[in-house]
Amino acid sequence: MHLYNHKVQYYETDKMGIVHHSNYIRWMEESRISFLESIGLDYSTLEKRGVISPVIGVNVRYRKPTYFGEEISIEVSIKEYTGIKLIFMYTMKNKDNQVVLTGESEHCFVSDKGHIIIPKTAFPDLDEILLKHVENA
Amino acid sequence: MHLYNHKVQYYETDKMGIVHHSNYIRWMEESRISFLESIGLDYSTLEKRGVISPVIGVNVRYRKPTYFGEEISIEVSIKEYTGIKLIFMYTMKNKDNQVVLTGESEHCFVSDKGHIIIPKTAFPDLDEILLKHVENA
Amino acid sequence: MHLYNHKVQYYETDKMGIVHHSNYIRWMEESRISFLESIGLDYSTLEKRGVISPVIGVNVRYRKPTYFGEEISIEVSIKEYTGIKLIFMYTMKNKDNQVVLTGESEHCFVSDKGHIIIPKTAFPDLDEILLKHVENA
Amino acid sequence: MHLYNHKVQYYETDKMGIVHHSNYIRWMEESRISFLESIGLDYSTLEKRGVISPVIGVNVRYRKPTYFGEEISIEVSIKEYTGIKLIFMYTMKNKDNQVVLTGESEHCFVSDKGHIIIPKTAFPDLDEILLKHVENA
Repeated sequence: MHLYNHKVQYYETDKMGIVHHSNYIRWMEESRISFLESIGLDYSTLEKRGVISPVIGVNVRYRKPTYFGEEISIEVSIKEYTGIKLIFMYTMKNKDNQVVLTGESEHCFVSDKGHIIIPKTAFPDLDEILLKHVENA
Repeated sequence: MHLYNHKVQYYETDKMGIVHHSNYIRWMEESRISFLESIGLDYSTLEKRGVISPVIGVNVRYRKPTYFGEEISIEVSIKEYTGIKLIFMYTMKNKDNQVVLTGESEHCFVSDKGHIIIPKTAFPDLDEILLKHVENA
Repeated sequence: MHLYNHKVQYYETDKMGIVHHSNYIRWMEESRISFLESIGLDYSTLEKRGVISPVIGVNVRYRKPTYFGEEISIEVSIKEYTGIKLIFMYTMKNKDNQVVLTGESEHCFVSDKGHIIIPKTAFPDLDEILLKHVENA
Repeated sequence: MHLYNHKVQYYETDKMGIVHHSNYIRWMEESRISFLESIGLDYSTLEKRGVISPVIGVNVRYRKPTYFGEEISIEVSIKEYTGIKLIFMYTMKNKDNQVVLTGESEHCFVSDKGHIIIPKTAFPDLDEILLKHVENA
């Protein structure tokens, strides 16, 4: 599990006075990129090797609103890695340790030419790192 | 079912050359607001009556990338209305009629003071309109 | 002069209840792309020919706030074209015909390899179209 | 002068592979809010006292592109404070200490009811702090 903090920006609020729900999808990305970097899979290295991992699905439950200036802590981990698909899960908490969001994002692997990649055969080192970091594996 | 069109803007693309996945959540909102307006539930009127319908969940499958300049057609309808919860569903298609996204968003009703509202008792006319527009009801 | 309409989206508002000032920069882009398309300079064609026209400066005066649901009309025109630099000017109005924003954006021309392009020598047809559409020229 | 760092996010890039120019307006806001907080004028306190300081103008020169993952350092200071208007100036630099952007934003003061406020008479303590922090004053 990896911890990432996001400070809520003014431009992320909407006229309801709370963070617009679309922004949490961006914070999920921020925390995911930070997590991958922490396990040696930084985005630029993968990109240089021709591997892209697009989002193919998101599933999010908004549990509490968040507000301008709040520091949100995001727990991100790998829930599942099938060798083809990769599922991250996220729990976001406010300063009072209340869960404000739980969510998942699903990813696959494609080459920079758009072809599906199977990490185990194409990039065994990448496959090994992902397997090692599946939560509770 | 309601049809809404969104033209992909340059600022909605990312360095992969395609629309960033967070933007589709915003297009879902655009189409939902347009749909609600078309059935007599425009946002401003609801707001004046003190009813807000926040997003409590989204579930999205990204099926194909979309590109700058494309005209995306969005079919939006009410999948379910329980009297408390409201679920919209969305199908987005590109010009070649290919499905690029399917998704759902879940909503509840709260007063402008933050209390849960049951439309049937608090706003029977709102309840009636929603019931009438549940897809295949 | 070219006219472009933008409908204010919910996600463009901030906690002050008005449109966040960063979004107008995006509307300027929307209207500029629409204008260029209307004079035969659509973005995709330019891109295929290897011409990019990045923003090198913006200068904006916010004159009145705008609100969710409003239809904003944007007048966009070429204020100046020196053969190297291109300056667009913008006037945005609300439904009551009140000016809500005036602004300018400055652009140059670069090849897809990042080199400065002089349209007159590299793309005489592009140069000719731009010259013809300078306001009051 | 106040220093603020912003790490470039993936969702801030566009199809040119660089940061979209609208995002720098948001970073200016981030750094300005951080600066004001550092001199005792945090946003929430001002808001509780009924003071809002909307942006009435921005003027930006984009000098170099910035890229995903880069750490951008932003120098922000008060260029001018007339007692009515407040002008901030910004210099953004990349890791190689190259200036990527210079800009200014202009602000006034309004009450939460929308009336113009003169800090000197309405909030002398606010006026004093601002005067003290004008660069080279």
